[in-house]
Amino acid sequence: MKYEPRRKDRRVGQDECLEILARGAHGVLATVGEDGEPYPVPLSYVFLDGKIYFHCARKGRKIDNLRVCSRVGFTVVGRVQPLFEENFSTQYESVIVFGQAGEVTGEGEKYTALYALAEKYLPEHIGKADDYIKRAFSQVAVYTVVPERMSGKARHSK
Amino acid sequence: MKYEPRRKDRRVGQDECLEILARGAHGVLATVGEDGEPYPVPLSYVFLDGKIYFHCARKGRKIDNLRVCSRVGFTVVGRVQPLFEENFSTQYESVIVFGQAGEVTGEGEKYTALYALAEKYLPEHIGKADDYIKRAFSQVAVYTVVPERMSGKARHSK
Repeated sequence: MKYEPRRKDRRVGQDECLEILARGAHGVLATVGEDGEPYPVPLSYVFLDGKIYFHCARKGRKIDNLRVCSRVGFTVVGRVQPLFEENFSTQYESVIVFGQAGEVTGEGEKYTALYALAEKYLPEHIGKADDYIKRAFSQVAVYTVVPERMSGKARHSK
Repeated sequence: MKYEPRRKDRRVGQDECLEILARGAHGVLATVGEDGEPYPVPLSYVFLDGKIYFHCARKGRKIDNLRVCSRVGFTVVGRVQPLFEENFSTQYESVIVFGQAGEVTGEGEKYTALYALAEKYLPEHIGKADDYIKRAFSQVAVYTVVPERMSGKARHSK
């Protein structure tokens, strides 16, 4: 079943979703464990050539989960704006992406993703990124999520 | 299986987890659909008497999911701090909670949760909260998550 944000006036188009992904500060990846338990984990990520990339250690729960089931949800919160008038709540600009996560095994793509992560999060140290990446290369894993479906939500000014 | 953040020096104790929950600006709730797909959704929430409360419309995907399976994961990101020295990445202070989500059916508890949400997110309009809550009371649902397990992650200054 395809889900859209319930309120039509809050839905955003594909372009706006891509923009929220491109400028988001961090995301939350949701995987499911073998026992069926959902597992949300905050991540640094970079959105590159239409794909989400993140890196992690070679061990851990999200990797265990991904081995059992590669289907993931990934969400990014953009601008936050409290809205008094309508529902006395806080309205987020956000996007939710669904797809499959897989490890990046090609060395070129892996290097590019790690370099892009460094550029996004620590641009002031970018001169040292190459050294760092070469040193850490075999110890970190890089995963990618290719978005299959996405939906976004925002408040559009009227 | 009990999972802890992989790096022991980054784990935080229960008290610190509760503190991150208490002051978090928003959270991401992860549920699982009937078809097994993980669904992460950003939420406004309030942490009250050791429980997480959020409100939502009476229809929608997260409610559909919760009807099938009430097991949830909930994560809150606290302070964010780029860390050059260690892994050329961004380190978040964060907490992940696991538990069951259930609708709050008692009117007193539901009112208290809605009022606490208003106090947290729109304190400048708190004088109008009572009116709003009474008007919207039957149209919104309030859910609570009682934490069964939680784990936190942070960088402790040395």
